[in-house]
Amino acid sequence: MEIIKVSSKSAPHAVAGAIANTIRENQVAEIQSVGAGATNQAVKSIAIARGYLAPSGIDIVCVPGFASVELDGEQRTAIRLVVKAL
Amino acid sequence: MEIIKVSSKSAPHAVAGAIANTIRENQVAEIQSVGAGATNQAVKSIAIARGYLAPSGIDIVCVPGFASVELDGEQRTAIRLVVKAL
Repeated sequence: MEIIKVSSKSAPHAVAGAIANTIRENQVAEIQSVGAGATNQAVKSIAIARGYLAPSGIDIVCVPGFASVELDGEQRTAIRLVVKAL
Repeated sequence: MEIIKVSSKSAPHAVAGAIANTIRENQVAEIQSVGAGATNQAVKSIAIARGYLAPSGIDIVCVPGFASVELDGEQRTAIRLVVKAL
């Protein structure tokens, strides 16, 4: 499964669509963000994705964790949000 | 139940402790943040709280949503993170 990478410039509605599609196909989606702006967009996207999936009777929850990633040759701490269908 | 209000200056370990205590008492906690920096601290706090609760066999998930709040006389959109014990 591909990780959905979110930046501070990502459009929450577009990311929400990607989350909803991945949930419909795999029942689980993984989202990664680096930095406060990106994490904020990721959380907003999950909230919006709930609205996309609710009419199909799908409710989602997320489990946040940390991950170490390399970005432009630098080691950074990313937030990983595992989204699961209930 | 009191809402745990998180700002961009909140210490994630302190917020994580408050989340863990609330979860132990009520099985559910509600966290509110306004702005990207605050939401980032809130998500980090939940990730840390997972580590505080895991040794007791408690796993938590979060459900993000939006809320309208008044801050300094201005209407702002807050992120509400409902944290639940599984």
